[in-house]
Amino acid sequence: MTSFVYVALVFSVIAMLYAVLLFRKIKKVEKGNKRVIEISGYIREGAMAFLKREYKILVVFVLFLFIVIALAINIETAVAFALGSFLSALAGYLGMRGAVASNSRTATSANDFGLKKALDIAFSGGAVMGMAVVGLGLAGLSVIYIIAIEVMDYDIQFMTTVLTGFGLGASSIALFARVGGGIYTKAADVGADLVGKLEAGIPEDDPRNPAVIADNVGDNVGDVAGMGADLFESYVGSIISAVTLGTFLIGKGDILYAFEGAVFPIFLAAIGTISALVGTMFVKGNDKGEPHQALKVGTYVAGAIFLVFSTLLVYYYVSKGYFVNYGPLISIVAGLAVGIIIGFITEYYTSSDHKKVKEIAEQSKTGHATTIISGLSIGMESTAIPILLISAVIIISYTFTGLYGVALSAVGMLATAGMTIAIDAYGPIADNAGGIAEMCNMDPKVREITDKLDSVGNTTAAIGKGFAIGSAALTSLALFSAFVKASNLTAINIATPKVMVGILIGAMLPFLFSSLTMSSVGKAANEMIREVRRQFREIPGIMEGTAKPEYAKCVDISTSAALKEMVIPGVLAVAAPLATGFILGSEALGGLLAGALASGISMAIFMANSGGAWDNAKKYIEEGKCDDCGVKGGEAHKASVTGDTVGDPFKDTSGPSINILIKLMTIISLVFAGMFGAGLF
Amino acid sequence: MTSFVYVALVFSVIAMLYAVLLFRKIKKVEKGNKRVIEISGYIREGAMAFLKREYKILVVFVLFLFIVIALAINIETAVAFALGSFLSALAGYLGMRGAVASNSRTATSANDFGLKKALDIAFSGGAVMGMAVVGLGLAGLSVIYIIAIEVMDYDIQFMTTVLTGFGLGASSIALFARVGGGIYTKAADVGADLVGKLEAGIPEDDPRNPAVIADNVGDNVGDVAGMGADLFESYVGSIISAVTLGTFLIGKGDILYAFEGAVFPIFLAAIGTISALVGTMFVKGNDKGEPHQALKVGTYVAGAIFLVFSTLLVYYYVSKGYFVNYGPLISIVAGLAVGIIIGFITEYYTSSDHKKVKEIAEQSKTGHATTIISGLSIGMESTAIPILLISAVIIISYTFTGLYGVALSAVGMLATAGMTIAIDAYGPIADNAGGIAEMCNMDPKVREITDKLDSVGNTTAAIGKGFAIGSAALTSLALFSAFVKASNLTAINIATPKVMVGILIGAMLPFLFSSLTMSSVGKAANEMIREVRRQFREIPGIMEGTAKPEYAKCVDISTSAALKEMVIPGVLAVAAPLATGFILGSEALGGLLAGALASGISMAIFMANSGGAWDNAKKYIEEGKCDDCGVKGGEAHKASVTGDTVGDPFKDTSGPSINILIKLMTIISLVFAGMFGAGLF
Repeated sequence: MTSFVYVALVFSVIAMLYAVLLFRKIKKVEKGNKRVIEISGYIREGAMAFLKREYKILVVFVLFLFIVIALAINIETAVAFALGSFLSALAGYLGMRGAVASNSRTATSANDFGLKKALDIAFSGGAVMGMAVVGLGLAGLSVIYIIAIEVMDYDIQFMTTVLTGFGLGASSIALFARVGGGIYTKAADVGADLVGKLEAGIPEDDPRNPAVIADNVGDNVGDVAGMGADLFESYVGSIISAVTLGTFLIGKGDILYAFEGAVFPIFLAAIGTISALVGTMFVKGNDKGEPHQALKVGTYVAGAIFLVFSTLLVYYYVSKGYFVNYGPLISIVAGLAVGIIIGFITEYYTSSDHKKVKEIAEQSKTGHATTIISGLSIGMESTAIPILLISAVIIISYTFTGLYGVALSAVGMLATAGMTIAIDAYGPIADNAGGIAEMCNMDPKVREITDKLDSVGNTTAAIGKGFAIGSAALTSLALFSAFVKASNLTAINIATPKVMVGILIGAMLPFLFSSLTMSSVGKAANEMIREVRRQFREIPGIMEGTAKPEYAKCVDISTSAALKEMVIPGVLAVAAPLATGFILGSEALGGLLAGALASGISMAIFMANSGGAWDNAKKYIEEGKCDDCGVKGGEAHKASVTGDTVGDPFKDTSGPSINILIKLMTIISLVFAGMFGAGLF
Repeated sequence: MTSFVYVALVFSVIAMLYAVLLFRKIKKVEKGNKRVIEISGYIREGAMAFLKREYKILVVFVLFLFIVIALAINIETAVAFALGSFLSALAGYLGMRGAVASNSRTATSANDFGLKKALDIAFSGGAVMGMAVVGLGLAGLSVIYIIAIEVMDYDIQFMTTVLTGFGLGASSIALFARVGGGIYTKAADVGADLVGKLEAGIPEDDPRNPAVIADNVGDNVGDVAGMGADLFESYVGSIISAVTLGTFLIGKGDILYAFEGAVFPIFLAAIGTISALVGTMFVKGNDKGEPHQALKVGTYVAGAIFLVFSTLLVYYYVSKGYFVNYGPLISIVAGLAVGIIIGFITEYYTSSDHKKVKEIAEQSKTGHATTIISGLSIGMESTAIPILLISAVIIISYTFTGLYGVALSAVGMLATAGMTIAIDAYGPIADNAGGIAEMCNMDPKVREITDKLDSVGNTTAAIGKGFAIGSAALTSLALFSAFVKASNLTAINIATPKVMVGILIGAMLPFLFSSLTMSSVGKAANEMIREVRRQFREIPGIMEGTAKPEYAKCVDISTSAALKEMVIPGVLAVAAPLATGFILGSEALGGLLAGALASGISMAIFMANSGGAWDNAKKYIEEGKCDDCGVKGGEAHKASVTGDTVGDPFKDTSGPSINILIKLMTIISLVFAGMFGAGLF
């Protein structure tokens, strides 16, 4: 059975090859006219320049932590950490290559062939990222497992330690990529919107807007590369926690059994990878129908295949006696089901088809303040059901299969991540294509098609968000349990004041972290606003379209600001658990992790859903669906734009970063668990 | 030593008599001309009508819980619960009587005699509330203690159980009063401001505004009665937790020692009460100087007397051998110090003398959205240092004196509550006086004086907020420890998934609760906005001042909405811990309480400080202190009004209610601790 890991490795290679295939397919498509090539060239160059500068900073960070880990733990873990970092960065890079190659081609295909072909190119671009992420993640994990059994001769200690190092690498890069990318994209977005749309009164993606290129670059570095690194870490994080707990719980002294328990989640993920690959093949639009249908079919096919084969796998494990019952299957199914339900709830709170978003639109009639209050209130309310559902999964999984079951439910949620990521990345590609169409004065039908593609992406992405949030909670809990075991603590007793202090501080960290990332967006956006205003003022002929704006200056402002501002939140995430561990000891650190997990999950859901709801309330008004809300540019619409602008850093910077913050803090505590004692007090 | 409790009872009676004396002094002052009598009559009637209707609903709630407690626990606890409820409601009622008696007289005194006399009346009005709250609280606790030693012959079990029931009564009323009062005042405020100031362009407190009476009633029912019930529960809550832990920790089997430990915090509070009483006598303004100075002198005198006598008390306890060291004194001093420092930090984040508020004003130049983002960010950032300070107090107190020390530090913070409450209540009285001056077309100098009085109140109240937040955390932790002991749990292990589920749900509750209260404010405000608009539209001559607006309709809208909307949050606070306890068991309930405490404290600080900062950023712009922010009514000012309006429910409804939510959930868990088993799962 442990030989299953070779199959997993093969599957991962297939996924990577498929990504290459898709990329080559995209490359063969006509890029477009000279103007399209020029504009998309700016976007590609801006995006690549950002990644290059970002990675230069990350190399320093990784090197520093590499040395610390090598000295404090061992060189193998340090190498695994570097590998995790590298693969995460690589996944982000490849995904972005796919995205910047397909944005222009999506626009041109929409123009030349219509919706079906455009959907195909945009989705293929997203699938490059999806397959790259799961392929690289699965390959890394499989290789470590193989080394543990073949080279190290079934060394459990080696495997779990090294895997954790790998996970730490993935988490670190994810945090920086999410925070940096999130600041970039929102600074550009807010700057472009506030000055361009509201002050100068020009439409979105108008080439006269100096921040328009930066805005489109932002979609790539934030919503593609940042999201890719994020999901890379969620994906490997969930598997690592299950592998680690698999060795603990099924091992029971028998080394071989431990490795059977450990290979199960890896193979489960491998099944999911292939299911997702097959699923992506089913995403075939037609020129009449809704692209919504195509994405749904792909998602359901992937889910169905995964369920069938994971049932067979569990059956096999039970028949061989590795599992005593079908509990693991219950966990997997419960995880999947809850992920989907959270997705629906996300949709309920954030889609204009449902009453909550309409409520915000209604409140926008009485002004900016009531729009904000209702959006905040809806976001806060939306935390309740997801938290209760996640709680139910935890209780159910734990009842049947213990903590291992909790970890498996997260793996179940994320196993078909290849598909989720493809859909997530497809959105910004379509968005970019629309921007290019606008900037290149293409036929209005192109924008219509890309808008259609984009809006569908938003709806379907809700399910992806449900998976991201649910899996973050479950993975963190599983990693947390691994931390407790690795710290040799028998219990973390809340009734001990030190632990309560840990919980208090931990619960505060997501607030502090959100404050840092939000104020970073604010600062960067302000710089952008000033620069855009300056260009409108100082460049003669810019509004008439006779002079070209200085796009590069805006790109540079976003880049520099994002890179500068991502450092402090990143350092906080690494330093807070280490400082707590050394000063207050590992029990208080356990409290810190629990507190951060608890308030962080609510905070992440709140921020994501408030942001999403405001966004769609604005669109709802813009589409003229809101009675008595007046026209675009009217008072109600302006209030809804305020909501959307506040929501931008909520949903695209602070909110998604909190998920990673929680996991990064837990995994760094796990890596250094052996070094914390009882603390100084 | 246990006989000290009789001294405490005498002190409490002195405080109550002093309150009566102050009230009679106020009554002797000239009320004013016919118009003043008419307007202040509306306010008084509106306020009293609200209290009457509110208390009618609360009677049903109290009766229901009385029966449940009588059946599930015992009749003594049920009676104590009813007593706690009654005294809390009485304190709110008396405080409001003081406030509605002194508002008109403050205005008239300002007109007839100037600042000094106005300060005297306004502060006396506040001190009525202050003395009533601490007098009634201390009397209730002393009587229960006396019954426990004299009638029940030193029955520890009786005392702690009955005291907890008393605390539950106080907490329940506090929650409803805070939530109901908070919704009332903010609905009226938002309604009056949005339509009156922004749409109709008439100044604040203009008698042509139909919501103006409701707005002034709101100050009384929210900021006086609601705040009074809130501090009544904080005050008795902190003492009860210390008394309970005193019996646990000092007892060590010796009944008499246990009662010595228990009487210490009661007597400490008694010293604080007299210190506060003396302090209020030192609040003497003069017609030239700043009232700020007078309030500061009073606060410092109260603090100094309290410190001297509590040092003597600890010395006595040590010399008698009841205390083994001066640890309790360290806790008291640490509590006081941290309360004051948190106050300064609150001021740093919320006063326009410091850079954070200026930052918000700066951001208001770029619009509504950046104003909101920066205010949210500043509020979230402001959680960090207070949490770290509270953590330090916990660690220090625990190190020297165990959990008893943690409870004592809360008592230390709140012992001079008589003074804190007087200052807190004085603000809305001055505010009301200003409103009356405006509505009665009094000499502009009156408004100047009341504005001066009001602004000082705001600054000094920051310290009061620091005490409220700090003590809530410490009291909750102490009550939590009492709950753990009462549940016969040896530990609450976070590493158990059920406990983690408890923490997750608990951390979510403050979000859900804030959502409920915020959306209630939104709904009520919307009704108010519609009514005010209707009156402006339908009543001819209203804007010219020839026709009288229908004030009573607006008062009724606020009243009905507040009473309707306070029910669900109140029921949630009671039902959530009970449901968790019965379904998931007491260990998971412990997790729930810890999670709610952790995320709730951060949330409360965040909301209070964001709200305060927005409020003062608006004032900063209105005072013309912000360069390039333009005039009142300009774009930057409008954006700052949006911030202030969003901040209103933050700082006056949701934020302060969370403190009570946490304590109420803990104390109800403590009351029913014996009934929860291991749960159904």
